[in-house]
Amino acid sequence: MRPHPRVVIVGGGFGGLQCAKALRDKPVDVLLVDRHNYHLFTPLLYQVASCLLNPSEVAAPLRKVLRGAPNVRYRAGEVAGVDFARKCVRLADDVELPYDHLVLATGSTTNYYGNESIRAHALGLKDLGEALQLRNHVLECLERAANATTDDERHRLLNFCIVGGGPTGVEYAGALAELARLVVPYEYPELPASALRIVLLEGGERLLPMFVPRLSDYARRELERRGVEVRTNTLVSSADDRGVTLQDATEIETATMVWTAGVRPNDPVHEKPERLTVDDQLRVVGAKNVFAIGDVAAARDKHGNVLAMVSPPAMQAGRYVARHILDGGARRGFRYRDKGTLATIGRHAAVGQVGRLRFRGFVGWVVWLVVHLYYLIGFENRLRVMLRWAWYYLRLDRPVRVIVRADPPSE
Amino acid sequence: MRPHPRVVIVGGGFGGLQCAKALRDKPVDVLLVDRHNYHLFTPLLYQVASCLLNPSEVAAPLRKVLRGAPNVRYRAGEVAGVDFARKCVRLADDVELPYDHLVLATGSTTNYYGNESIRAHALGLKDLGEALQLRNHVLECLERAANATTDDERHRLLNFCIVGGGPTGVEYAGALAELARLVVPYEYPELPASALRIVLLEGGERLLPMFVPRLSDYARRELERRGVEVRTNTLVSSADDRGVTLQDATEIETATMVWTAGVRPNDPVHEKPERLTVDDQLRVVGAKNVFAIGDVAAARDKHGNVLAMVSPPAMQAGRYVARHILDGGARRGFRYRDKGTLATIGRHAAVGQVGRLRFRGFVGWVVWLVVHLYYLIGFENRLRVMLRWAWYYLRLDRPVRVIVRADPPSE
Repeated sequence: MRPHPRVVIVGGGFGGLQCAKALRDKPVDVLLVDRHNYHLFTPLLYQVASCLLNPSEVAAPLRKVLRGAPNVRYRAGEVAGVDFARKCVRLADDVELPYDHLVLATGSTTNYYGNESIRAHALGLKDLGEALQLRNHVLECLERAANATTDDERHRLLNFCIVGGGPTGVEYAGALAELARLVVPYEYPELPASALRIVLLEGGERLLPMFVPRLSDYARRELERRGVEVRTNTLVSSADDRGVTLQDATEIETATMVWTAGVRPNDPVHEKPERLTVDDQLRVVGAKNVFAIGDVAAARDKHGNVLAMVSPPAMQAGRYVARHILDGGARRGFRYRDKGTLATIGRHAAVGQVGRLRFRGFVGWVVWLVVHLYYLIGFENRLRVMLRWAWYYLRLDRPVRVIVRADPPSE
Repeated sequence: MRPHPRVVIVGGGFGGLQCAKALRDKPVDVLLVDRHNYHLFTPLLYQVASCLLNPSEVAAPLRKVLRGAPNVRYRAGEVAGVDFARKCVRLADDVELPYDHLVLATGSTTNYYGNESIRAHALGLKDLGEALQLRNHVLECLERAANATTDDERHRLLNFCIVGGGPTGVEYAGALAELARLVVPYEYPELPASALRIVLLEGGERLLPMFVPRLSDYARRELERRGVEVRTNTLVSSADDRGVTLQDATEIETATMVWTAGVRPNDPVHEKPERLTVDDQLRVVGAKNVFAIGDVAAARDKHGNVLAMVSPPAMQAGRYVARHILDGGARRGFRYRDKGTLATIGRHAAVGQVGRLRFRGFVGWVVWLVVHLYYLIGFENRLRVMLRWAWYYLRLDRPVRVIVRADPPSE
């Protein structure tokens, strides 16, 4: 009997995991490599950073997700490079993993556009460690502000600056405004409620540029109604310990700059800031039997536009590539079906567009809740997050407000 | 109007928190100081380390617990010393907090008895950071073992050594055995199930010495039935990267030594390894208007025996001291009421003694569940932990299996 073809999938995000699941119990041997042992439900990551959800509610252990599929295995590892000629993936610890088919689904990481002062002072919101760091940081700012000895210091600690008006920036700004409103007046008698300031900076003309202008305007109004100061056409030029400096030389004193203003692909092959070029069948140009999907690849829709770095194209591409491998190639090109876009601003406020439909407000919010529960991995997580949301809805609480780090490993 | 007397409570554990709660809405100004912003339910900490509970399920934010009591405030701070003569507490950042009454409830920390090699290689299980570190470490050992290239390395990674046969050691050993049994055979096909070894080392003659010998024997049998290797009369003399060395020169190769073999009081005044001497009214000998309660103080029962370093004496002492302060002193001495002791070994197995009653097995386990839910702080946490336990009972799962650290704060 011929051994089954060996498929190596690098990355257990939306694309890689869909591909692995579609290859379950099929005549292939699949190895899913990821440096984290969990699949992260990134659309809810800002709820971890804003004290609503626990890490384990948005992170499903990959071994658990893949349980019961003897032909699909997980391996913890960081990919350092790929040797297309010898058909093997090289890990950071120099182990080599041979493949017959390779699927690169390595996602993306925060892009500081080479600005070192921003990189050094920014807090990211792209992975679970960053979300926990941001949660700890914000809670620590409140504690330090409560004991600040000068007005200047208190002012700086209570100024929260979010850079980037895309979905992550908008959703986190809304969630932070709610955290402030629900918790600070009741639990920080030392702090004047009005002392808190949340500033959202966007370089372009409007928030949420992937939505129609009407919904962008609505998002801005809703954020402003919740106390968020929105500044569009505003670019950050540098940052230091005292705060951020804008391109027009304005300085904003702040201890917190959350950077959601850019992502770049995690390209383990060329380490270039551009997405990998793929053909219409998602094959990496210049390599054999290598696919790239999701944020790392520049796949295009039927109009020739590069697809956004969000989860739905990655998931569809993962399933497409799985079928491609099973069928032995020669398929029609990948065709992305746009299922629509959603973003939430806070309680009772979200925006969405699905096909020609546009919605916002309470309806948008309910749709947002249902869709996110539906796509959350694992029945237990779904149940738990639903209970959390119900609790939050009834009690207006932010329960996960503990400042905690895992101690560093002992030497 | 005379200002209210100022009560400073150092430590938001069981003793300090009970004291603060008993002073709510009374004619005193209370400041509760703790370096962590949460009260930790330490009896369930091992369930965080063994992937059953989330951190926020055993940690309640102190500001939330104290919400709605305008005379009780929280302050984040690390106490560096106390000036009894000038009646003030000195924090690590040199801020001084004046008091009229001081309550020292600083608890205890891991005791390595001055053994540097053990301190450097041990994993503790005494606070939330340590529990998360241990959880990450054990999961990483499994991942590294799955990819180990030599039998020796795999053997060392799958040898888990727990030092100390008190409740923490027994409960964690039982929980780790269940984690291994429930997860490894189904999710780590690379690992032979029998390769896992859990060794519990106890220096004395028997496990759980605070219980009657019959229950100690039962605990040992139950642990052994679950695959834990129990060695009594066994002392660890040193540790290094390869493993631990016993006093009889035996070496155990292991990458994991969990140290639960000793605690020492966190004495912010003298920094001595002994508990603070207190009189029968829990006043620190040699100081005026200073009380010490819980693990940090050597309070005695009616027979003159020093009370154990567990939560019930701390809680009772906290309430006693609150009444003492409100009544202006001159009370009868503190009298500890022993409500009994419980420890769990795993599913369907626990031991307990309450007065003359002794119980074990399923009954003990149910009593353990009910008592721990009852004392868990906060209705939401109770509901969530109950659901978790129900889920675990039905599904035999260990859901919180993510390896995650908060990134270190950016420079």
